[in-house]
Formats: sequence, C-alpha cells, structure tokens
Amino acid sequence: MKSHRFKSGLEKLKEIDGQAGEKVIESLASIAPDLAKYTIEFPFGDIYQRPGLDLQKRELITVAALTALGNCQPQLNVHINGALNVGCKPEEIVEVIIQMAVYAGFPASLNGMFIAKEVFVERSILSE
Amino acid sequence: MKSHRFKSGLEKLKEIDGQAGEKVIESLASIAPDLAKYTIEFPFGDIYQRPGLDLQKRELITVAALTALGNCQPQLNVHINGALNVGCKPEEIVEVIIQMAVYAGFPASLNGMFIAKEVFVERSILSE
Amino acid sequence: MKSHRFKSGLEKLKEIDGQAGEKVIESLASIAPDLAKYTIEFPFGDIYQRPGLDLQKRELITVAALTALGNCQPQLNVHINGALNVGCKPEEIVEVIIQMAVYAGFPASLNGMFIAKEVFVERSILSE
Amino acid sequence: MKSHRFKSGLEKLKEIDGQAGEKVIESLASIAPDLAKYTIEFPFGDIYQRPGLDLQKRELITVAALTALGNCQPQLNVHINGALNVGCKPEEIVEVIIQMAVYAGFPASLNGMFIAKEVFVERSILSE
Amino acid sequence: MKSHRFKSGLEKLKEIDGQAGEKVIESLASIAPDLAKYTIEFPFGDIYQRPGLDLQKRELITVAALTALGNCQPQLNVHINGALNVGCKPEEIVEVIIQMAVYAGFPASLNGMFIAKEVFVERSILSE
Amino acid sequence: MKSHRFKSGLEKLKEIDGQAGEKVIESLASIAPDLAKYTIEFPFGDIYQRPGLDLQKRELITVAALTALGNCQPQLNVHINGALNVGCKPEEIVEVIIQMAVYAGFPASLNGMFIAKEVFVERSILSE
Repeated sequence: MKSHRFKSGLEKLKEIDGQAGEKVIESLASIAPDLAKYTIEFPFGDIYQRPGLDLQKRELITVAALTALGNCQPQLNVHINGALNVGCKPEEIVEVIIQMAVYAGFPASLNGMFIAKEVFVERSILSE
Repeated sequence: MKSHRFKSGLEKLKEIDGQAGEKVIESLASIAPDLAKYTIEFPFGDIYQRPGLDLQKRELITVAALTALGNCQPQLNVHINGALNVGCKPEEIVEVIIQMAVYAGFPASLNGMFIAKEVFVERSILSE
Repeated sequence: MKSHRFKSGLEKLKEIDGQAGEKVIESLASIAPDLAKYTIEFPFGDIYQRPGLDLQKRELITVAALTALGNCQPQLNVHINGALNVGCKPEEIVEVIIQMAVYAGFPASLNGMFIAKEVFVERSILSE
Repeated sequence: MKSHRFKSGLEKLKEIDGQAGEKVIESLASIAPDLAKYTIEFPFGDIYQRPGLDLQKRELITVAALTALGNCQPQLNVHINGALNVGCKPEEIVEVIIQMAVYAGFPASLNGMFIAKEVFVERSILSE
Repeated sequence: MKSHRFKSGLEKLKEIDGQAGEKVIESLASIAPDLAKYTIEFPFGDIYQRPGLDLQKRELITVAALTALGNCQPQLNVHINGALNVGCKPEEIVEVIIQMAVYAGFPASLNGMFIAKEVFVERSILSE
Repeated sequence: MKSHRFKSGLEKLKEIDGQAGEKVIESLASIAPDLAKYTIEFPFGDIYQRPGLDLQKRELITVAALTALGNCQPQLNVHINGALNVGCKPEEIVEVIIQMAVYAGFPASLNGMFIAKEVFVERSILSE
C-alpha cells in the first residue's frame, strides 16, 4: 500500500517532470524499488509540497545547485526540463547557470549550459 | 583609475552586502588587491547587473549553491545577509537550505542552516 | 502528532548517537524544526531501520563517506561516536579513515583522522 | 625488478578485481607506467593488505566513498564488481548506495545505483 | 562593440587553445553568447594576461586543478592541449596528473591520465 | 626498521616543510602511526622524489589543487609555507590562488587567499 507521501509526491513529480518520474521508478524497479519510493516520498512528497517557496523558485535553486555540484548531469537535465514545465523562462535558466561561474567556476557553468542547450534543442526552444 | 564595471559593481555590492563589500576590499588590500578588484568587477559589475533575474532570485540561487558546495561558509554568511538585505524573507532562505538536503545531502543542509541561524540571531530575527 | 517514522527514527538515533540526536532537534527548533523532523524521519526512521546491513556496517560506510566528502566535520564527529556506540572497534574506524587516502586523497584522510583523535581523546580511548 | 609491495599488491588486486587490475596496468603502460605501479603498490600492496578490516568491509566502504564523491564512475564499476568478487551480497551493495542519499544527496545515490545496475546485469544478477 | 579585454582575451585564448576558443564561442552563440564573452574576458582577458606567472606554469596549475576537481573533463582536455601548445613537455603534464593522486585520490588521477592519453594519441605523441 | 622510501621521504618533507613533517608524525603517533608512515612514504618518498618536475612547480600545483578543492585548509597552509621554503616567490603563490577563481569559483579563491595572508603575516612577508 502506497503512503500518502508517495501519492502526493508522485503527483508533484508528474507536475514537475512529466514522464520522467515514472521512468525513474521503472528504471529502479528491478534493482532498488525502495530508492525509487524514497525519491518520490522525500523530495517530492515532503520538500516540494512545502508552501514557503513557489515551484519556479524551487526549480531555479535546484538548477543552481546541480550546476554548481557539477557531477549530476542526468538530474540537471531533468530539472532544466522541470523548470520549463513549471513556467520558468529559458532566459531565467540561462541566467542561473551563468551566475554559477562566480561560485563554482567556469567549467561548472559551461558544462551546465551545454546540458541546457541539449534540453532547449530537444524542446525546440533553440534550433540546432 | 577605476573602470565602469568596478564602480557599478561596488555600488551593487553595497546594495546587496552593505559594509561587507568594503571589508573584502580592505582585507585583500595588502596581499592581492587585484583579486578584490575582480571580485567587484566580474560578479557584481557584470553578473548581478544583468536584467534577466531579479536580485532576490539571484541571492536565493547563490544561497542554494553555497549550501550545496558546503565549503564556502564565509561566503554563505555574506549571502544569507545579502538575501535578507534585498528583501528575501527568512522563511524563503530556510526553505532553500532545507531543499539542499535532497541534492547535496543532510550534512550540507544542516551546516548551511547553522550559518543561517547565526545570521538570523545576529540580526535579531531569532533570539538566541 | 509525531509520525511512526519519527518515533522509530528518534529511537534509532538515540541508539546510535546517544544525546546527539536530541541536541540536533533542539538546535534547529527555533529556525527550522521541520529540518530536524526530516533528519530524524528519513535517515533514521527510513534508512537505518532497513534490515539489509547491520548498524556497524552502516556506521562504517558513513564514516567513509563523510571522510571522503571532507566538508562535514560536525557530522563526522557524530558518526565516529555513533560507530563506537554501536560496537565498532576504534581500530576499524582508523582503518576506514586510512583507506580514504586512496580514494579522496591524503588531506581528506588526515583531516578525518584528526577528528577521530578528538573523539577518542574525549572518550578516553586515547590519552591526550 | 618488482618490489614486494607490487607483487603482493598485484595478487590482492587480482583477488578483488579479477582481470581489471591487469587492464589498468596495460592501459597506463604507454603513458604513465609508474602511475600503474603506484596504483598497485599503495592501495593494494599497502592498504588492502592490512588486517584491521576484512575485504568485504573494505569494498563496502569504497563503494560508499565512490558513490558519495560522485565523479569516479569507472572506479565505482570496478569496486562494485570487487565487492561481489570478495563475497558481498548484491543486497548489501544496494543498501550502501541507498544510504548515500542521506550523506551526499539523491543524485549521487541514483547515479551510483545505475552503475550497480549495469554491473548486476552484466553479471546476470539482474535480467535487463 | 568588443571590449579591449575581449580582444586581448581572444588572442590569448588562440595562443593557448588554437581553434578551441572559437569553438566555445560558436557553441554558446545560440544559447548564451554572454557566457562566451565572459569566458574570453575574465579568464583570458584578465587572468592569463597577468605577468606574475608564465603561461606554462598557468597551464600546469590549471591541469592540476581540473584533475583534482574531477568533474571537468572537457576543460581538462582543452587545457592538456593548451599546456602542450604553450610548450609544456608531455612528461610534465604526466607528472602533474600523477601528483594529484596524493591530494585528490587515485580515481581523480587515473581519470585525468586517461584524458591525457586521449590527447596524446590524438596529437600522435603516443601511438594507440 | 624504516624503509628507504620513508627515510628519503622524511628528508624531502623536511626540505619542503621544515618542522611540519615531524609534527604530523607526532600528532598521528597515538592514533594512526601507519598513516603518518604512508604520508611520508608515498607523497614524499615516491612522488616528490621524481625528476620530471622541479620542487617549485610541484608546490605550485599543490597550492592550486588544495585551493580548488576548498576543504583542505591545514594542508594548504603547510604547502604555501612549503612553496616559499623551496623558493617560490610570494607573488607566484598569489597568482596561483587568483587563477583558481576561474576554475573553482571566487569563494575557493578568496578562502585560499586568506590562508596565504595568514602565512605571509606569520613569516613577516606582510605586516598585519
């Protein structure tokens, strides 16, 4: 039986990531279904449900953190998509990634921007 | 002679950090005045001048990145102050730092929160 | 009303960390009580409850990770204490930290060892 | 002439990694044979020879550290194989990687798990 | 109109990286031309222009830092090429990367060396 | 009985760090004398003995890496001293640390510079 946190987390994840949420659950099903469960429950069932920050800001700070950390490319791809899905403008995402050059260095910023470019091309925001 | 970037950067830094900007310049004066100059010119004369993201969002993403990186305590202190100075609510800063538990782990989030607590106590937002 | 996850998490945290758990809750009470709640619920109410790995191994891998990350000193202190509390031998903790020199470099290993030394002296495992 | 540390290190590496050890030596032969030598001598000729921690625990803490660091995918692949080779159960490896979500964040844990999945499929522990 | 910093930065970048500089500008043109501009202006128009350290040393410390950080592979490739372009010997680059095993661990050093190998093969310094 | 690597490593460490080497050995004597031994043998008995890079360059790349990693303050202090001991000019050390702003961000560079300032004041290169 699924917990309330799981159900509302899965709904929130769909709101943010569209199909990506279900793909994560499926891809972990054979090896670690509980990690999928936790990934739904804690980030999306607990944190993203909280009222103190709107979803656009939540996605922008996530893009910032993942760009700065520099070793989370798949998640950065997901959350650049997520940011667009909840209404952030492409220009805002670009600004966030540029600003990371200050705090995490130019390589982190450049590598983040190339992922944004992939996402923007895939979504026809940019032509290739 | 100071460049335009330096002058507008210094003004922006004062808007964000109050006295902190001048303290950085002073503290570097004897060893690396040029690093002080670059710290004014590039982040504050170039990046924070850009129109695509308002100052509140710029400070929130900086708090996110510095919390996630986890080894920039002095700068995190400065930018939690900066976020408050440009009008972010304490609750928003708390939300940003909580969310970092998802992306950078609980230690990064907890250590960031203890710095926020120091700042909030210093500014009498919290009593000790 | 506290959730089941919170209650069993708090018990587990006491088993591992003694008083440290309650100190974390108290220290966050004025600024972010929910972060304290999550810190009890997810790590200790979910993860450390799982049967697949005994508590000694869970503490050793935590000491390994925190030593390698290198910027989580307060948590490393807590979990070196935790490892001892659940029955790990001091020699095992020393071995874990030495091995991190291979994967995260000598500075990470040395800085981790100096924290272990503090803990061991505090607990009279070592004389000063 | 090979040192004693090299010879016993190479044997230990074979015990842990099977063919992987010789592949590393070969792949570095043309550019930096001494780095291959050090990689055998220090980690496997010194550290993994030490009596204070059994090989299973040594592999589990290595999987923990490499998952947490998040930028050592090839080595994580090697040591998930190594953990299995010295008798760790797949379930234990999965537990270690799940636990890293607490200390290094969900992206590090998820990315580590996808490497474990590759290894498990390759070894027919999981079907694709 | 291009700034003086941009023009001298672009020249310096060509001196160091050959065609790589223009490729970066082009690849960012559609998404974030200003990030390309900053990447020319600050690192190459400001920092690499400074007299206190010759270009060979500047490239060696960059190779060191990028190897140690471990999540900047594209930039490490560029700067291993850059180091060779400004006259560093392949043996020096190899030494820098080996030494990083001490400070950032063996995985960082090994992963850096494999990038050096790619560059050396591409430039026929090594045969495959 | 001490190995040849230990003896020549200890001599090299004294050449670079003066008293600092013996302090490390002493400080680890009660908890992990073998980590002290490895710290002498591998970095200083193996790596710093190698002919391909002079000691000044070895110290500059170490200062670069430790500044970029950002969580190795005690070791950065030791190696800024080491760089000066083997004849690097203070200006070169300052340049290395400034350049790290490009690759690891301004916080890493600023925090490294404040450690350089401490060292320079302690050695009366700067007045306070």
